[in-house]
Amino acid sequence: VILTGDDSCGGDRFALSDHRAAHIRSILRAEPGRLIRVGMLNGRVGIAEVASVDEGRVELICHFDTDPPVIYPAVDIICAVPRPKTIRKILVIAAMMGVKRLMFVRANRTDKSYLSSPLLTSAGWMPHLLEGLAQGGLTRLPQVSVHPLFRPFVEDQIDELLIKEKNWLRLLSDPEATQQLDAAWGDCDNCHIVGAIGPEGGWVPFECGLLGRQGFVGFSLGPWTLRVETAVTAFLAQLQLVSSRQR
Amino acid sequence: VILTGDDSCGGDRFALSDHRAAHIRSILRAEPGRLIRVGMLNGRVGIAEVASVDEGRVELICHFDTDPPVIYPAVDIICAVPRPKTIRKILVIAAMMGVKRLMFVRANRTDKSYLSSPLLTSAGWMPHLLEGLAQGGLTRLPQVSVHPLFRPFVEDQIDELLIKEKNWLRLLSDPEATQQLDAAWGDCDNCHIVGAIGPEGGWVPFECGLLGRQGFVGFSLGPWTLRVETAVTAFLAQLQLVSSRQR
Repeated sequence: VILTGDDSCGGDRFALSDHRAAHIRSILRAEPGRLIRVGMLNGRVGIAEVASVDEGRVELICHFDTDPPVIYPAVDIICAVPRPKTIRKILVIAAMMGVKRLMFVRANRTDKSYLSSPLLTSAGWMPHLLEGLAQGGLTRLPQVSVHPLFRPFVEDQIDELLIKEKNWLRLLSDPEATQQLDAAWGDCDNCHIVGAIGPEGGWVPFECGLLGRQGFVGFSLGPWTLRVETAVTAFLAQLQLVSSRQR
Repeated sequence: VILTGDDSCGGDRFALSDHRAAHIRSILRAEPGRLIRVGMLNGRVGIAEVASVDEGRVELICHFDTDPPVIYPAVDIICAVPRPKTIRKILVIAAMMGVKRLMFVRANRTDKSYLSSPLLTSAGWMPHLLEGLAQGGLTRLPQVSVHPLFRPFVEDQIDELLIKEKNWLRLLSDPEATQQLDAAWGDCDNCHIVGAIGPEGGWVPFECGLLGRQGFVGFSLGPWTLRVETAVTAFLAQLQLVSSRQR
């Protein structure tokens, strides 16, 4: 369960009365005295003792004593806006796997109606990010942004967003690419990674071309045709393996 | 859309009147003349022309002219029986990513009630496997089996199931392992892979020990705590990368 300063009721005591309270009561079936794993949003993780469980309210005594695992390399994901059901899954996966930034961009194959999904607002994405953090035992909230115009985003905004990173590697998931991630990785050392994951049906050639001109290197995840959320997981999993060789 | 011999109405004509007909009508919004991708179960893939669309019935003229992509290496997955919602996701992922066999086994942390899920019957798992094949553009149906007793399965049945494979590599996903998949892979050449993916919360030490004595080598997928279906995807994605180095 992920807590925030707003849940504090002084000292090490925290009170919950929302879906997290319901989760502790109904799914974890926790009674007073039970220990559960907790994390402070953007902070440390630890153990909480359930102090009381009432109809709508759970009180916890929390000890945040451990840093959450460090996820290396730092990864940003540029994701073509998919259908809302898939947006939800990607939010959970990104938080669970420690993605730093998640940039949704409208692609040619993005249905215009998807842009108006309430999931693409901070009130909409927050619960799914928290669910992912809780599942992954992480606490750092990914930054989410939405970019309705592909061209200005790729031509101008990406550079602005990444300007502070000295070493970056820009990757483009492309089923047509002949190289896999280890070849695309090259001799990237201590890089900040940006990976672009296309929509169902893929990026159109114009989009691939524009990303290519901005330094994005194409790679293939494998011989499959994957769903978008499966591609995100596969990308992060392969990246983990490739980057571990240099440690 | 995946077709079977049962759907044939002579020559290259096929008629559908189940959920696939509904999918073609409502989701693909296909009208007569439209071309859609089709695959023959355990056979080739190709293109079909929609010949007619009636209230409950769709007729297709099919040309199966291409072999589906070959997924290498061949992978079997042993999966601790998860909650039904997760079983469904794993069935789709396994079919979409070309898993050869999917063996569900009851683990210590498997809730007993999960074993009676209708998803663990051929009528229950079939639609989800077909959905995965259709998504992945594959046609070979994974073999699914259910093993309610962990110990006899690991001690006796695994060997029987694998006896025909000369080179196999048995892998055990274990967050405690210090090596990643590339190290566990060693010099495996043209191997048939068997990967054991634990339940939410992991295998218990007894289970790890028993699998280890049967030749399963532990590896870590990364620093994450993943959901079971995410672990399956991550495993298959990393395997693809590791095995491609030898080609």
